[in-house]
Amino acid sequence: MIMPGLVNGHCHGPMVLFRGLSDDLPLEKWLFEVMFPAEAKWITDETTHLGTLLAASEMLLAGVTCVQDSYFCMNGVARAYQEAGMRAVLGHAVIDFPAPGISDPSRKIKIVGDYVRAWQGVDPLITPALFAHSIYTCSPETLEAAAGLAQDAGCLWFTHLSETRAEVEQVREKYHLSPVRHLEKLGLLKSLSLGAHGVWLDKGELELLAENQVALVHCPESNLKLASGQARVGDWLSCGITAGLGTDGAASNNDLDMIGEIGTAARLAKLTHADPAALSAAQACGMAMNGSARAMGLGEVCGSLLPGYAADLVILDHKAPHLTPSHDPASTLAYQARRSDVRQVLVNGRQVVKDGEILTVDLPEVMAKVREMAQKVAKG
Amino acid sequence: MIMPGLVNGHCHGPMVLFRGLSDDLPLEKWLFEVMFPAEAKWITDETTHLGTLLAASEMLLAGVTCVQDSYFCMNGVARAYQEAGMRAVLGHAVIDFPAPGISDPSRKIKIVGDYVRAWQGVDPLITPALFAHSIYTCSPETLEAAAGLAQDAGCLWFTHLSETRAEVEQVREKYHLSPVRHLEKLGLLKSLSLGAHGVWLDKGELELLAENQVALVHCPESNLKLASGQARVGDWLSCGITAGLGTDGAASNNDLDMIGEIGTAARLAKLTHADPAALSAAQACGMAMNGSARAMGLGEVCGSLLPGYAADLVILDHKAPHLTPSHDPASTLAYQARRSDVRQVLVNGRQVVKDGEILTVDLPEVMAKVREMAQKVAKG
Ligand SMILES: [Zn+2]
Ligand SMILES: [Zn+2]
Repeated sequence: MIMPGLVNGHCHGPMVLFRGLSDDLPLEKWLFEVMFPAEAKWITDETTHLGTLLAASEMLLAGVTCVQDSYFCMNGVARAYQEAGMRAVLGHAVIDFPAPGISDPSRKIKIVGDYVRAWQGVDPLITPALFAHSIYTCSPETLEAAAGLAQDAGCLWFTHLSETRAEVEQVREKYHLSPVRHLEKLGLLKSLSLGAHGVWLDKGELELLAENQVALVHCPESNLKLASGQARVGDWLSCGITAGLGTDGAASNNDLDMIGEIGTAARLAKLTHADPAALSAAQACGMAMNGSARAMGLGEVCGSLLPGYAADLVILDHKAPHLTPSHDPASTLAYQARRSDVRQVLVNGRQVVKDGEILTVDLPEVMAKVREMAQKVAKG
Repeated sequence: MIMPGLVNGHCHGPMVLFRGLSDDLPLEKWLFEVMFPAEAKWITDETTHLGTLLAASEMLLAGVTCVQDSYFCMNGVARAYQEAGMRAVLGHAVIDFPAPGISDPSRKIKIVGDYVRAWQGVDPLITPALFAHSIYTCSPETLEAAAGLAQDAGCLWFTHLSETRAEVEQVREKYHLSPVRHLEKLGLLKSLSLGAHGVWLDKGELELLAENQVALVHCPESNLKLASGQARVGDWLSCGITAGLGTDGAASNNDLDMIGEIGTAARLAKLTHADPAALSAAQACGMAMNGSARAMGLGEVCGSLLPGYAADLVILDHKAPHLTPSHDPASTLAYQARRSDVRQVLVNGRQVVKDGEILTVDLPEVMAKVREMAQKVAKG
């Protein structure tokens, strides 16, 4: 079975370094007591490079040929995707607090601008971009500066959008508007390309997003694991929103497996809409292919096997017992296949996975270094 | 990583023959227009034997060493599990309509009794049992006869219990009681061992089930795919109910992957209970191990790695990128591992999977036959 390479619409690759560090915790405790301190202590260009090499390997081996990845210390991230030979749209995060690589928040637009300009035109597979962390962690001034920089530099900008109910309530309390309407009032909805999660959106907001051509990326496994809620993806599609699919970071998933994510998306939508016909296998596969690609501005580059598209493609072994019998390719991918069925992977015509082995990364060395670092991280 | 073999608490093995035959359909249409006619036309002892060889291979390769499987034409099913070397508790189905192998429903108790007695004491790995299809497809007389036969023959009996809202409404309309209270009134709750699904149960019913030591088996992927709803497994555990985990049949899942099911159960419970701490990874793993084993009367035989237990065990490769880093074994199994990480499998001390290959079944031949049959089935 040959298929277009899968496109991970929302990810934080370096967070594989914190995978499994703490699970089954309330969100606030997880984020503020575990993740933020771990990031402050451990994230540098060197560690994001290491973590991203592992993340890229995991994704390529699982048939993911393109990713929208957003984090800090993005020079390390970009170098790693470049070395791994993976297509990537890489949003440098912007947030109001001190963050890895941005000890002085007042310098953030300068630092991010330098990153974007440094990576433009360097590699046909690497597209720099900008990621405003969220509406509740970025002031109106920060959001305006981010959107302004994106316009000046000619890059896309993204954000986390209405992921949790608490976030929406916090924004509503501060600005008397939901995150989407707050962005609209600031005049920023038009230029925003991608909102990740979109769990807590009403019909009017979905229509606003469709009008403004803001894509949404669904991250069902992360939303489940953090108990954030369930996005109404059926409504996204019926409103004409460009809908992608993503894994989010490995600290809240805990893998970067888009085949698994397709299955979760297709199954979960049936519960969400109380309708076994909601989000067909083909629709879920489409979200993970051209849907995600369109969300990150690559809708005419990848995510489809059509003339003029890049040769980002995946060959799956079709002979495993769990793939027997197989009637429809989309159903097989959504409900039966697993990442281990991926045998060959090409990105932009270059073979990067051969017979289930990655050709571009020294994986045993990377894993040994990550294990060593993870032991230190676990000690605190 | 060594772990106890996984225990699939609810399955219909031969339904792998109908895997992917039709997806994303409303339940009634799926069941009455696709599944029942396909079963009537194709299910014989020969085809259940073939399908079960495939199902057993798929499960063993994925680290499942024991299964509770219920269907028709169970002699074929039992022979297949015996040949595959898998531990199995095999409930012959009882239903009020004509069914495969039971063209005359008035003979069902005789036919099922013959099956149970024929397989008792034959093989230490095979335990015959009885499966009353459901409260809405079995009359009170059928349920009483089934429970009576189970008592006479000294075997366990199981049923599908409160899987869909429609089923509960149908039973309520007919008997003015919910399925659980209807069973209680018939005096049958005491002898029932296992109810599969348990999606639509109130607190009082859960307490009744706990009092009567009726185990429940959670099938989250099937419940999602058919839009049946979400079982409140956190409440099962807090009520002291023995809780197992199962895949259900491959026609409604569409795989028999218990590692995937553990991940889905752990993630989904967090949404169901709006609590990221609901159903920890360790609890979900426990359901898929000793929980399921206890539900099918094997709580002191398998599902734990303890002195006195059978040597049903699984060795996972720990070196894949998606398993790096790994902090906690339960979290690793629930949120990172995939069936392809299973390398060695022993059942009752006998190695049945070696280096990811099954030793007991001629898998290429079985798959070729299933593919051939599936093509005929698809033609109708
Ligand atoms: Zn995110
Ligand atoms: Zn069932």
